[in-house]
Amino acid sequence: MEHPENDAQYTGLTVNSGVAQPPSVNPYLKKFKRKPLPSPAEMVERILKGDVTTLSRAVTLVESINPDHQTVAQEVIEKCLPYSGNSRRIGITGVPGAGKSTSIDVFGLHVLKKGGKLAVLAIDPSSERTKGSILGDKTRMEKLSIHPDAFIRPSPSAGSLGGVARKTRETIVLCEAAGFNNIFVETVGVGQSETAVHSMVDFFLLIQLAGTGDELQGIKRGIMEMADGIVINKADGDNIDRARLAQAQFRSALHLFPPTTSGWMPEVLTYSGYYELGIEEVWAMIDRYFDFVMSNGYFEHKRRQQARYWMFESIDNQLRSNFYNNPEIKVLLENLENEVLSNRLSSFIAAKNALDFYYGEKK
Amino acid sequence: MEHPENDAQYTGLTVNSGVAQPPSVNPYLKKFKRKPLPSPAEMVERILKGDVTTLSRAVTLVESINPDHQTVAQEVIEKCLPYSGNSRRIGITGVPGAGKSTSIDVFGLHVLKKGGKLAVLAIDPSSERTKGSILGDKTRMEKLSIHPDAFIRPSPSAGSLGGVARKTRETIVLCEAAGFNNIFVETVGVGQSETAVHSMVDFFLLIQLAGTGDELQGIKRGIMEMADGIVINKADGDNIDRARLAQAQFRSALHLFPPTTSGWMPEVLTYSGYYELGIEEVWAMIDRYFDFVMSNGYFEHKRRQQARYWMFESIDNQLRSNFYNNPEIKVLLENLENEVLSNRLSSFIAAKNALDFYYGEKK
Repeated sequence: MEHPENDAQYTGLTVNSGVAQPPSVNPYLKKFKRKPLPSPAEMVERILKGDVTTLSRAVTLVESINPDHQTVAQEVIEKCLPYSGNSRRIGITGVPGAGKSTSIDVFGLHVLKKGGKLAVLAIDPSSERTKGSILGDKTRMEKLSIHPDAFIRPSPSAGSLGGVARKTRETIVLCEAAGFNNIFVETVGVGQSETAVHSMVDFFLLIQLAGTGDELQGIKRGIMEMADGIVINKADGDNIDRARLAQAQFRSALHLFPPTTSGWMPEVLTYSGYYELGIEEVWAMIDRYFDFVMSNGYFEHKRRQQARYWMFESIDNQLRSNFYNNPEIKVLLENLENEVLSNRLSSFIAAKNALDFYYGEKK
Repeated sequence: MEHPENDAQYTGLTVNSGVAQPPSVNPYLKKFKRKPLPSPAEMVERILKGDVTTLSRAVTLVESINPDHQTVAQEVIEKCLPYSGNSRRIGITGVPGAGKSTSIDVFGLHVLKKGGKLAVLAIDPSSERTKGSILGDKTRMEKLSIHPDAFIRPSPSAGSLGGVARKTRETIVLCEAAGFNNIFVETVGVGQSETAVHSMVDFFLLIQLAGTGDELQGIKRGIMEMADGIVINKADGDNIDRARLAQAQFRSALHLFPPTTSGWMPEVLTYSGYYELGIEEVWAMIDRYFDFVMSNGYFEHKRRQQARYWMFESIDNQLRSNFYNNPEIKVLLENLENEVLSNRLSSFIAAKNALDFYYGEKK
């Protein structure tokens, strides 16, 4: 997992920091428009040099549903893999209205002050899009979007959660190979995506608002227990007391939870994204977390388990997808589902009928 | 983080190796050898009359891995299905030491005072057995075990969680057809089983102890947010103040959680199983819950969704089981897993290799 070649990038002393220019002034761009795709080996070479334009093109290939693009993408990913892993992967979630974009903008700038590079990715399956903002929208991260060392990529625009999550995970590999030593993965906090994000990041940050009523309506149960840190936004002006009260409440609630696998006790802090208050403290907590899990070996352990998880997750996804996309199965399942919903057929007989048909057909 | 596939038990890889007793020495089956099985139609007739001996035999068939027994079991279940559903299904979980068995004994007697019948089932995949008690052990429920209207059935003794959960769900159908209008499903609260139980019961009760430290060590994160009610046991003698404090803490913690899908606000009560204090209040809460979800339509909605869930769950289980039980895939996966864990191969390429082999082989 440790690759000496990338040490410089990990410390932020990257030799490539000047290359991450906005595409409009990138000298390669015109060339690409006229010329066909570079070979996978060539793309990898450029990515390793930190060429953001090539990185973008590679991510586009990852997101493409064209099988030829997929083949190239897989080769590029495979070649980048040995150079990946040297980043802090941070998942950020929160209800719509919690101020995620503003917070990411401010947190991102804070991180970049220390040097290094930051990639902001997003998981937002299209079915959930209407519920939240268009995640990763550059215009919502005003400062980061014009920062030379930041790479903002909106969520892949379509597909199942499994598909979108897979693409985001592959994009992490590419970004890391390109020297991005900070990865933020944003998600909207209302659906299934948190589990997917949780399984690809090192630290999971939950942005909350003061108040225990309507503000929580949007967030899904179970997310609170995934968080390594809870931060309460909009702790400013008249709202400070409410934020502090919420902090105390969340703190005592967290004490009732069983311990985390890492041994880390999740912290609760307040801040103001808009007025840029308490940002340093939030980041100091995240630093403490990384020190903690680096020294107790949990960091490496979790990364390995995540890789393993994604292998099995990909297999399961594909097994399901092959089954459920079978046209005859689709018709059959619709009927069986109706029988089950009206209690005329047991769940298990219905499943057996569908499977017998599926495996019978294959013989 | 933890993927079900990481647990060999869950994949069904060890479905046979974990069987405590080969079918030939199972005492129930010996009986069958002496007395020929009644026809499925005859069994159903007896079950519908409330014949517990036939019910027991049918459950044994459900649990059997013998394909002939399975065929009979499925026919019996299918015929019982129209007579099922008329019960309150209550899931009960808690850490080892929380006093689950004593509590179930007392709660059960309380329920039976009102008339009707009670079946106590358990989900306890064998992999987790060592961590807890042998669930559903009759000797631990002293009063219920000799009660004429109680039917106590220990957890199926072996198999994957998916398999055990399926058998328990089928057993619920049989018990309901036999007139059991109260079903308790007990689980040990430390593993994956809660999700399975949660998806087959109407009300999910979490038994806790006062104290926020070591007592919680054993319980898995996420379970608290599944509970429709949290009850704190051992609220007696010197412990009353601590139990009340815990109650207040859990109450305020629950207020921080987002609302449940049912609209029900989970309640927190204290009681003493041993001294039989507060039992009526706990049951009054459960009555309130049923009134609530019956009147807002959630009860029926949840039941239908659960049936649907189990159909898809069975399909997914079987798809996985077919794949992971393939002997060549087993060998291949072991190698691929090592490559992934040492970061030499990406999760996705590893998955693709295994799937290409699997589907290639079938052609």
